[in-house]
Amino acid sequence: MKNKSLLCDFYELTMANGYFRAGMGEQISYFDVFFRKVPDGGGFAIAAGLEQIINFINDLSFTDEDIEFLRGKNIFDRGFLEYLRNFKFTGDVWAVPEGTPIFPGEPAFIVRAPTIQAQLLETYMLLSFNHQSLIATKSNRIVRAAEGRPVLEFGARRAHGAEASVMGARAAYIGGCAGTSCVLADRDFGVPATGTMAHSWVQMFPDEYTAFETYCKMYPDNPSLLVDTYNVLKSGIPNAMKAFANCLPPKGQRNCSIRLDSGDITYLTKKARAMLDKNGFDDCRIVVSNSLDENIIRDLILQGACVDSFGVGERLITGKSEPVFGGVYKLAAVEDEKGNIIPKIKISENAAKITTPHFKKVYRIFVEGKAMADLICLYDEEMDFTKPLELFDPDYTWKRRTVTEYEARELLVPVFRGGKQVYTCPDIHTVQKYCADQLDLFWDEVKRFENPHNYYVDLSRKLWQLKSDMLGGVRK
Amino acid sequence: MKNKSLLCDFYELTMANGYFRAGMGEQISYFDVFFRKVPDGGGFAIAAGLEQIINFINDLSFTDEDIEFLRGKNIFDRGFLEYLRNFKFTGDVWAVPEGTPIFPGEPAFIVRAPTIQAQLLETYMLLSFNHQSLIATKSNRIVRAAEGRPVLEFGARRAHGAEASVMGARAAYIGGCAGTSCVLADRDFGVPATGTMAHSWVQMFPDEYTAFETYCKMYPDNPSLLVDTYNVLKSGIPNAMKAFANCLPPKGQRNCSIRLDSGDITYLTKKARAMLDKNGFDDCRIVVSNSLDENIIRDLILQGACVDSFGVGERLITGKSEPVFGGVYKLAAVEDEKGNIIPKIKISENAAKITTPHFKKVYRIFVEGKAMADLICLYDEEMDFTKPLELFDPDYTWKRRTVTEYEARELLVPVFRGGKQVYTCPDIHTVQKYCADQLDLFWDEVKRFENPHNYYVDLSRKLWQLKSDMLGGVRK
Repeated sequence: MKNKSLLCDFYELTMANGYFRAGMGEQISYFDVFFRKVPDGGGFAIAAGLEQIINFINDLSFTDEDIEFLRGKNIFDRGFLEYLRNFKFTGDVWAVPEGTPIFPGEPAFIVRAPTIQAQLLETYMLLSFNHQSLIATKSNRIVRAAEGRPVLEFGARRAHGAEASVMGARAAYIGGCAGTSCVLADRDFGVPATGTMAHSWVQMFPDEYTAFETYCKMYPDNPSLLVDTYNVLKSGIPNAMKAFANCLPPKGQRNCSIRLDSGDITYLTKKARAMLDKNGFDDCRIVVSNSLDENIIRDLILQGACVDSFGVGERLITGKSEPVFGGVYKLAAVEDEKGNIIPKIKISENAAKITTPHFKKVYRIFVEGKAMADLICLYDEEMDFTKPLELFDPDYTWKRRTVTEYEARELLVPVFRGGKQVYTCPDIHTVQKYCADQLDLFWDEVKRFENPHNYYVDLSRKLWQLKSDMLGGVRK
Repeated sequence: MKNKSLLCDFYELTMANGYFRAGMGEQISYFDVFFRKVPDGGGFAIAAGLEQIINFINDLSFTDEDIEFLRGKNIFDRGFLEYLRNFKFTGDVWAVPEGTPIFPGEPAFIVRAPTIQAQLLETYMLLSFNHQSLIATKSNRIVRAAEGRPVLEFGARRAHGAEASVMGARAAYIGGCAGTSCVLADRDFGVPATGTMAHSWVQMFPDEYTAFETYCKMYPDNPSLLVDTYNVLKSGIPNAMKAFANCLPPKGQRNCSIRLDSGDITYLTKKARAMLDKNGFDDCRIVVSNSLDENIIRDLILQGACVDSFGVGERLITGKSEPVFGGVYKLAAVEDEKGNIIPKIKISENAAKITTPHFKKVYRIFVEGKAMADLICLYDEEMDFTKPLELFDPDYTWKRRTVTEYEARELLVPVFRGGKQVYTCPDIHTVQKYCADQLDLFWDEVKRFENPHNYYVDLSRKLWQLKSDMLGGVRK
């Protein structure tokens, strides 16, 4: 894909042109990116996609070709097109670091910028955040279901295009996958790529044993033989054992596995395990694939399937069970000519679509070392965290709790200041580790698959009052 | 994304290196791309993604950086890496043109190439075909549900990354959408991009009326006002009518619409229609959006919702109800050193995963001008289509039908011959038209949403016999 700066929705350009013409383009606006619902009924999501957003903002500029394309629409002002020709982002961005557990309704990003600039970030910020958070969240579910067994991301061929396969593999790694099949995700991001053979390899040889033997001789360090091309128990596993015995060093010095991609996994892996063990191959690992997800993996483990690692394809890379991560980009405030911040609210026919106004900051509150609630405050609220803190549910305000011994940490970090990048993205391994460490700070109740504990995302008293007043004012 | 040639699964490289080392790399192989199941229980799918596959194959080559990356893995032969450095595709590819209705089990692509080359196409061919066919098929369902009302693709922000938004918009247009919100899909493919305002536009002004008036004055040709920022019936529509009256030419010379993005669409559009009509705005169109898909649209229309066009977002761009299009890439035959074609079959523990062997061609059989069945034959079968043709179900062979007056047309066209592109992709508008025209050749029973007629995909007697014999042989 050529220059991606026009990766926006057309209305951003009609609005931007409108602000330009109305003389409002330089007015400072505040936008929040947040999401409304955790996919799959989970208790939390994993934020991802920031690195690509940073690159997009740094690269955001319009080529002559872009300008000519827009001119051809015959609705944009000449002055606006000139403005685009000299475009440079000059605003501020705050974001939660990639790998952070996040919750509905709290800002994952805050953009403060001249209105035109802020408007032009909308689509790309959302699509990168939505896509990668979707996959990182799903990956983490699958990894937790596998209870310590490595999970490999195998879905490139079912991804929604080339970029989705690479960024999906990246996000899956953040969420805890051990590696990917996607070579480009390794070259470009260092996500470890692995893989051995398809059925076509086995079919290319006169017989299954020859295919296995050839492979083991070529790759004696770590062969993984696909045993279900003809018949798993009658031919695949016997041939695999024969090839291992003939081509690899003896037990203790070899590293081998078989892979199953069809059939009844529980039944076949139990039979396979017994057959391998009985013949002196108790060191041979069993890898399974075939339309797996967290539910099937939990079920396999419950049923006693003998699996050492999982290859997960289409259901991870597309987030099949719920492929939409509904992040939105909403105006929260504007500045008047004196620099006063004027909060903005969006009412809606759907109560869930009502926004929380104003420029905000978010604290994560830890009690006894575990995250207990997130607290959204006004940007300039002076919080005295040495005093007891009363938390209350913004919808059911009678739900209250006061904590005395706690720690508060700010959730968003500055990423751009005056258009200049002030945040360095950690490498992907560091992000993966950070994600796992952060999740250790949450109670298991939040991480439960069914009916997870509803983690508190509360508003400060001042912000709650402001929102209530604005709601009342508009409804009047 | 830099050079995409390494967009493959790691096992393709281990296999390719293996074929190279075993001296099998230049052996000619035949691979079929086909899919197994129409998403959403539909009666057919729409093929898409060919143009990007052609570009990928033309560009397929490995940079020094790619080679160094692979060398660092310490498992690839020096000779193989040199082979990659000089890589050029020299094979043949046949494909069904984009926009063609296709059915499970029949090849949508056939690749004939030296084995290493054929293997390296697998991932990209599948992901482009899978992604775009998924979205084109979904789009066509939604467009049919809208019964002639224009459907606009609005999903960029929920797509699985940047490329998925652009290629998704392209595929949605092939399937029949009238346009997109995605500007880049317009610049790069000519998919008409449209859009007017977000809620943020309305919020940016002191009041809703001023926002509407400002917009109508700036864009008097075709303003579409978003009326649900505060209250649709009490404020949005009255303010919209006032702005239309004050800023646009009189009825007959103006072109205006309102958009609703929340609330009970049926209730609100009926009320809105009545309010507009009563006040002399019966020319004002009503556009609706908000998590629509073919089922909701059919329901809205059944309930008498007053809608002139639909904006469809996340449920189209992600194929939400079934986001996986399961195209696969399977070995069908190899050539021996004398050029004889040796058919190959893949058995499986899952009957649905058994492949149909050999180098094939596919005919679509038309009776009385309507498509009645597809017939898969051996590549060199001499079919005498002047004689009556007996068709039979390959699974339930007692299901037979003989047709006398019919026409047979080949479904796949040559795309590459000896590595040279021999097919020119039509522009996107021609593809859209072709798709609609092709669908007119199918009976409504195939296009039904619930329990569509199971269109016949039959094997020639010779191919059926070959497959049966091979199955029997392997099982023995």
